[in-house]
Amino acid sequence: MFNLFSPRQRTLRGAAVAASLLALLSFAPLPSAAARPAPQPSEPTDEQIAAQLRDAALAGENLAWDWVSELTTRFGPRPAGGDNERQAADWAVERLKALGFSNVHLESFPLTAWVRGVESAQIVTPTSQPLVVAALGESPPTPPTGLEGDVVIFPTFADLKAAPANALTGKIAFVAAHMVRAQDGAGYGVAVEARSDGPAEAARRGAIAFVLRSVGTDSNRLPHTGTTAYVDGKVPVPAFALAAPDADQLERLAALGGKVRIRLYSSASTVHDAHSQNVIADIPGRVHPEEVVLLGAHLDSWDQGTGAIDDGAGTAIITAAAKLILDLPHHAPRRTVRVVLFGSEEVAQPVAPFGAFGGHSYADNHKADLARHVLAGESDFGTDRVYSLALPAAVVKSDFATTAMRVLGPIGVLPAEEPARHSGTDVGPTVEAGVPPFALRQDGSQYFDIHHTANDTLDKVDREQLDQNVAAWAALVWLAADGEVDFRGHP
Amino acid sequence: MFNLFSPRQRTLRGAAVAASLLALLSFAPLPSAAARPAPQPSEPTDEQIAAQLRDAALAGENLAWDWVSELTTRFGPRPAGGDNERQAADWAVERLKALGFSNVHLESFPLTAWVRGVESAQIVTPTSQPLVVAALGESPPTPPTGLEGDVVIFPTFADLKAAPANALTGKIAFVAAHMVRAQDGAGYGVAVEARSDGPAEAARRGAIAFVLRSVGTDSNRLPHTGTTAYVDGKVPVPAFALAAPDADQLERLAALGGKVRIRLYSSASTVHDAHSQNVIADIPGRVHPEEVVLLGAHLDSWDQGTGAIDDGAGTAIITAAAKLILDLPHHAPRRTVRVVLFGSEEVAQPVAPFGAFGGHSYADNHKADLARHVLAGESDFGTDRVYSLALPAAVVKSDFATTAMRVLGPIGVLPAEEPARHSGTDVGPTVEAGVPPFALRQDGSQYFDIHHTANDTLDKVDREQLDQNVAAWAALVWLAADGEVDFRGHP
Repeated sequence: MFNLFSPRQRTLRGAAVAASLLALLSFAPLPSAAARPAPQPSEPTDEQIAAQLRDAALAGENLAWDWVSELTTRFGPRPAGGDNERQAADWAVERLKALGFSNVHLESFPLTAWVRGVESAQIVTPTSQPLVVAALGESPPTPPTGLEGDVVIFPTFADLKAAPANALTGKIAFVAAHMVRAQDGAGYGVAVEARSDGPAEAARRGAIAFVLRSVGTDSNRLPHTGTTAYVDGKVPVPAFALAAPDADQLERLAALGGKVRIRLYSSASTVHDAHSQNVIADIPGRVHPEEVVLLGAHLDSWDQGTGAIDDGAGTAIITAAAKLILDLPHHAPRRTVRVVLFGSEEVAQPVAPFGAFGGHSYADNHKADLARHVLAGESDFGTDRVYSLALPAAVVKSDFATTAMRVLGPIGVLPAEEPARHSGTDVGPTVEAGVPPFALRQDGSQYFDIHHTANDTLDKVDREQLDQNVAAWAALVWLAADGEVDFRGHP
Repeated sequence: MFNLFSPRQRTLRGAAVAASLLALLSFAPLPSAAARPAPQPSEPTDEQIAAQLRDAALAGENLAWDWVSELTTRFGPRPAGGDNERQAADWAVERLKALGFSNVHLESFPLTAWVRGVESAQIVTPTSQPLVVAALGESPPTPPTGLEGDVVIFPTFADLKAAPANALTGKIAFVAAHMVRAQDGAGYGVAVEARSDGPAEAARRGAIAFVLRSVGTDSNRLPHTGTTAYVDGKVPVPAFALAAPDADQLERLAALGGKVRIRLYSSASTVHDAHSQNVIADIPGRVHPEEVVLLGAHLDSWDQGTGAIDDGAGTAIITAAAKLILDLPHHAPRRTVRVVLFGSEEVAQPVAPFGAFGGHSYADNHKADLARHVLAGESDFGTDRVYSLALPAAVVKSDFATTAMRVLGPIGVLPAEEPARHSGTDVGPTVEAGVPPFALRQDGSQYFDIHHTANDTLDKVDREQLDQNVAAWAALVWLAADGEVDFRGHP
């Protein structure tokens, strides 16, 4: 009952999924299985079922596109704690029930929400020119008449931190550093330090506002928002990201000589009695229902785009993978597969633990069960292809890893060089509580061209790569959930 | 004395231009010239000088990058009739004088200016979502409280025009047609019909506002502005372009079923006593100073970007080409080379002739001289490479064409299949008055990803392709200005 923008899938899904799954009943060994013990003709191995799930997903026989299309179309941006996030969660509950999942329910938690309001910026000296800015998440408003100051440019955040006390009295600090493009997204963490701690470091030196070049790798007039850090319950000064071309412009203008003065305005506000919610849905295990393989993604998004790649697509990937497993005829997995669509991944909070309130809420609510959560993974890195599988240290050299790589290798997945130590923000508190993580790592080369900008919309989702993600998730989750492997590596 | 963002050029220009131009004095025949009459050792042919100009430009030994960088950095957007356009014109006069041009002056003309103001849009039913819009140029404001209506979607403008009278009473008309990408930009004219005439056609059927999918080929949340047509001195209803992803969103939402209602706001206004100006600069001809080869581009820009590709780059290309000719030692051309940086190319006007007021002002002011304007060309199609040369019909099969293609062929320029009938909006009135046009046609495959959007900024300029443009212009203009060819083809 998904929306109908995918004629290819609409035509194929009903018939083709049934056909490919029925094919399992009249099973013939795959060529690659020839060297292994011959299975019973009517009982395919887990590896063979994983390969079938993979191939069905890869052929587009999965609901990921329809899910992300309908979610982002119906609800648009889904900022944490707002109406759209709540409506999306209610919709997800109805959809997951209709799809046949069990134990479908919401778990609510309180939240301080942040609301962007109106924002603007201009160069006022030496000439009048508009600038494109986005207030950073959690940033306080400017005074109602705006604020104006001379710009002091710091090539890097380290340069700002090296400035003496009072060096910025009455000024606006601008950190001009560029984020580095990298396949694994390694440039992001480095760049985000300035976004998080910049306002506090600037305020400490007397600045009236903090501006940074958008964290991101694009060249669009679409600034990248994201959280900045609370200090003693508030962000010390108004803080903005400047679109990359505008950051270039400020730097060039300053290099022409003379003072550059800018004006900033924001009417951002906070709502202290908001709430958010996690959505939970299970495929109950047929042998060990108390053992949970946890799949996470987040329903909330930043407010500028419609959260298609961050993280509508993640919710689509894990839901579609689980649905393929749910639909296996006579093959419910031994363990429970749990889908959690987390609320409030994006925003920071004024109180400890300062973020990941959806993740913390889940870990708190399910504390007693975490010891029997056998594995946890998160999809929150867009829709580009999975290129690497990281498994918990205990199983890196196991038969499980060998089997998983036999299934995933053919769709372009490499074994990670290091074991998985984390998998995402939402499952972070669960992983910190001792649940082993896995990571299906995606190519992030283009992710930060779009991430956290107004350009995060459905048209940026590549359907073929989305299908490859579902293929990887369905196959791996099936292997983990239908097996008996102890990912903690207890003797 | 240009700004210093181009270390490569800064290092090379002084020494290398001097060296390459001095090389003309100790001339040796080029290999390709071997079959033609041997020149005097100390007197290079026009073709050889054209090739030297071409090669110097191609090597980056030209001021185009510095010009477009400083123009767009100092003045940002330059909407017609505004302060930034005027300041840019004053700056250009000073720069052109400093570069050594003659007869440098401004020619002012009156104008109705259009000022964007603040604008916004939201989906209000079935869910609340922001939309990214840009008011179309000359569009009137909405009421101060905005306006709201159900959306009626027309797949094409023809569908709107086929709707009966009163079909849109109280509604908002939305034309969802996509612009077609084409190397020669042919998709633009087709798409622009809806932008020009849509508000009138919608109003005629009772609509309270007109919205169209951005004319353009991008997928950014950056709507494409541009003029819409006055009818009896005003645009009948507020009119907006919707960014491509937002247009997709409206269509998908409607396809989910149920009513889609949106809200629009704009505080656009007009200034009736504004003025704009053309900037004129000459290289006086050494033999026939009264014969003019006219090079045009426009200084004004739309207000969303900084007018780097439209048309800062054009002003840079023609100025840089002329400057290379100006700097030829002992080789001032026989005819005058005139650079005109036109004002007010972009906006429509409420009175006839409704547009191209800079172009009309020039043609009016110089009416008596146009009979001795021998050739006119305009650079107003971005910065991508020149791929085709169109010449006036009279010389298509002449020795001039053969020589020009020998010089331009090696840098990727093809002969056009048809003679040039026009060259650009600004020189349009001059060409209509009988001056033969030429066109150095540029690859427009990517032009409409950027054109008229906030993304029209300096970082979109490809320096190598910019240099190739200067190379083509310098070589061709030299051949036309130092020759005696009658491009009108009089016997």
